[in-house]
Formats: sequence, C-alpha cells, structure tokens
Amino acid sequence: MQVNPIQLFDAESSTYTYILAAPGDPGAAIIDPVDRHWQRDLAHIERLGLRLTHVLETHAHADHVTSAGRLRALTGARACVPSGCGIPPAEVQLEDGDRIAFGAGEEIAVIHTPGHTAGSMCYLWRGNLFSGDTLLVDGCGRTDFQGGSASALYDSITRKLFTLDEATRVWPGHDYKGQSVTTIGWEKHHNARLAGRSREDFVALMGALNLPPPKLIDIAVPANRQLGLPHGM
Amino acid sequence: MQVNPIQLFDAESSTYTYILAAPGDPGAAIIDPVDRHWQRDLAHIERLGLRLTHVLETHAHADHVTSAGRLRALTGARACVPSGCGIPPAEVQLEDGDRIAFGAGEEIAVIHTPGHTAGSMCYLWRGNLFSGDTLLVDGCGRTDFQGGSASALYDSITRKLFTLDEATRVWPGHDYKGQSVTTIGWEKHHNARLAGRSREDFVALMGALNLPPPKLIDIAVPANRQLGLPHGM
Repeated sequence: MQVNPIQLFDAESSTYTYILAAPGDPGAAIIDPVDRHWQRDLAHIERLGLRLTHVLETHAHADHVTSAGRLRALTGARACVPSGCGIPPAEVQLEDGDRIAFGAGEEIAVIHTPGHTAGSMCYLWRGNLFSGDTLLVDGCGRTDFQGGSASALYDSITRKLFTLDEATRVWPGHDYKGQSVTTIGWEKHHNARLAGRSREDFVALMGALNLPPPKLIDIAVPANRQLGLPHGM
Repeated sequence: MQVNPIQLFDAESSTYTYILAAPGDPGAAIIDPVDRHWQRDLAHIERLGLRLTHVLETHAHADHVTSAGRLRALTGARACVPSGCGIPPAEVQLEDGDRIAFGAGEEIAVIHTPGHTAGSMCYLWRGNLFSGDTLLVDGCGRTDFQGGSASALYDSITRKLFTLDEATRVWPGHDYKGQSVTTIGWEKHHNARLAGRSREDFVALMGALNLPPPKLIDIAVPANRQLGLPHGM
C-alpha cells in the first residue's frame, strides 16, 4: 500500500531529503540527507519515535555534502550507496535489482539509472520512486559531468522508469519551484524534456544546455565519496 | 491507518499547506493553501491524478492570504472554515465535533481550539493532526490579536490535543527551522512552552513575548475573511 514518505527541504541547495517509515513500524530509512541538517533530521526521527537503520545515497552529489557518515556514526545505521559511485566507506555497495530490507518487512528496490552520473540509482518503496537527479518534476538532471550521458539518461528514464505503474509517485532529489511530487504517468505524458521526444532530440537538447559547473563540485564530490566525513569515519 | 499528507511550503511566510488523499482514492482535500501558490497546488493535484473536493482553513490568517476562494472557483471544491472566524463566503461553517467526509469514505474530525484566535480549529485525519497555529513544533501560536487568549490556548492544547493518542502526527501551520512534523507524545513531554508548565506560568510567558504585529495583518485578515478574493466570489 502506498504510504507517503516525509519530505524535508534544504533551501540552500534546493535538495529534498526523505524519511521512509511504514505505519506502526519504528524502523526508518533516510535518503539523501544534507550535512547542515543532521540535527534537524535526527530530531524528526526522535519526535516520530523512529529508529534509523539505513542511510541511502542516490549518487555522489555535486551541489551539497551528505550527512550519511555522521548519521551512521550517531545511530548505527548502515550506509547504502550505488556501487558505481566510488564511495568506498559505505558498507552496502548496491547493484541493480538489489533489495534493501528495513523495519518489519519493508523493502526498497534498487534501480540502476545511469545518465546524471554513471552510478546513479533510483529507489522504489511502496509505490514511491525516489528519483534522485535522474527524473525531476517536469525535468531531469544534467548530464555533463561524473560520467554523465544524455543517451544513457534517456534510456534509464524511458526504459526503466516510464515502464513503472503510471500511478507511481515520483519524489525528486531537487526542485527549484516548490514542486514536491509527481507521478510516472504525468511525466511520461507531459515532461518538458522527455515527453514525445526521440533519443536524438533529447541528446541534442541536453548538449545545448551549456550550464555553469556546480559551485561546490570540487568540494562536494570528494567529500561525498567519504560519506561527508574526513576519511569516511 | 496512518497515511502521511503531502506537505507544501511557502518560503515567504513559512506556511505549510497540506494535501490529503488516501491511497487509491482520487478524492482530495487541501488545508491552508496560500494565494501565490494556487497554480503550483493545482499542478500537484493534477499530476497526482486527484480531484479537489474540499478546501479547509484552520483560521483567518494574519501573515498570508489564502487561495481558498480561487481554488473553489476553479475546481468546485467546498470551502470549509471555522464558524467563529468570520468568513461568511464559505459554504461550510464548522463547529467543534463536526466531521467532513471526502473521497471514498475519508473523514476529517473538527476540533475547536481557541487561543491563537478565538475561532481556530484543528483537523484530525487518519492519525494526523493539522494543528494550524495552535500547536507548533516545540512551540505554539501567539495569542495577542483576533480574540487570542493564552489561557484558552493552554486549555485547548493540554485538554484537547494532549489527550489524543501520543503517536498522533502533528503537522503544523508554520515552521521557521525546517521542522516539518512532530507527535503529540513528543510535544506533551518536551514542548519548550508547554511541557511541565502550569496555566499561570504559560499565561505569564505568552504575555511577556512582546512580538511586533504581523506585517500583513491589515491586508491579510480582511482578505482571508473573503476567502482571499474580492467580495469572496
């Protein structure tokens, strides 16, 4: 049964963090936590009477630093990361098709969706897709660094994500306009970058974006490859 | 069964808006929508495949203007407001203990909680309390205008809200620190203004706050008494 996650926002980088917990079950997972909010996020978990057991990253972020290492140290949660993202301190190196069990019978399905970065993963839980920077509300992630590939992103979205049930709720890794959630059905039919577009058109569109590099990339990526802590401790 | 609402944020006034919908049910209600986000909110409802049938206000806000009248005009939703808030254009004037039915068997319980304003209401749906400006995360609403009363707020919170199940999730009308959700149990035991405090202490504390008047009060309250539209149309 579909249960909405709790969505938290970082106003500086417009990043969404998600807390996943099933009704009546104290087990909880968190996806893409942001360093400067570790106290806020732990306070949420405490107020809700939850116990954090898993910290997931969708990829090695270029625009903010993760709190995964710190949350792991403070709670004993397991750090779960895409195997292709070069984050060696994480104990769980995820592959496409893996399942992460948490709480009393909860399961997160792991979907490898290369394109924004070569290692990027999406996570599926109870009819909710956590799409990282792969699929955004009426948009998608950029593809011009960290092994990014517009062609791979097109295939990941159209072959792996758009074949999910149309009612699947999509919770993005970022949004810049207060758009919090969408569905596979809506994006398949209306997404400004993808709906009705061929791979060739999409690759041309992405190649012409000409975006400036993320301001924090030289700090954030190396830090995130250590789970946001010196030496990944 | 507890189902989280979808929480939306207005960064200018730090107001939370909530969309309520049960899994697999297209019927939806919205609580405390903000004028400048009416297009965003309708886009959410459309993307999720929902149909808006009820627009609820917790009180006549002093810090932002509602989009209730506009959403009603565009969707045919019914406007539901506390009877004591002086909002005559709304077709449903709620009293303590009323129930609002929406979707296929969903029900919202109405709890009159005077204190922040004389007419303020909280709404309870599937283990979620929408607490408006009555109870905030580790705080509470101010009590110095619109028939506000610290004594009444103390009674509303301690006698009506703190007697709910401790696992009840509390979704506030505002937060200024990214704190999105709490529980009755946590607030009962830890709320900085209320936990372990007598009515006398609380009244003295609130009386000494000495807050400046809300910047928009002279515009927002009259506008919200007309559902945010000229002549409440």
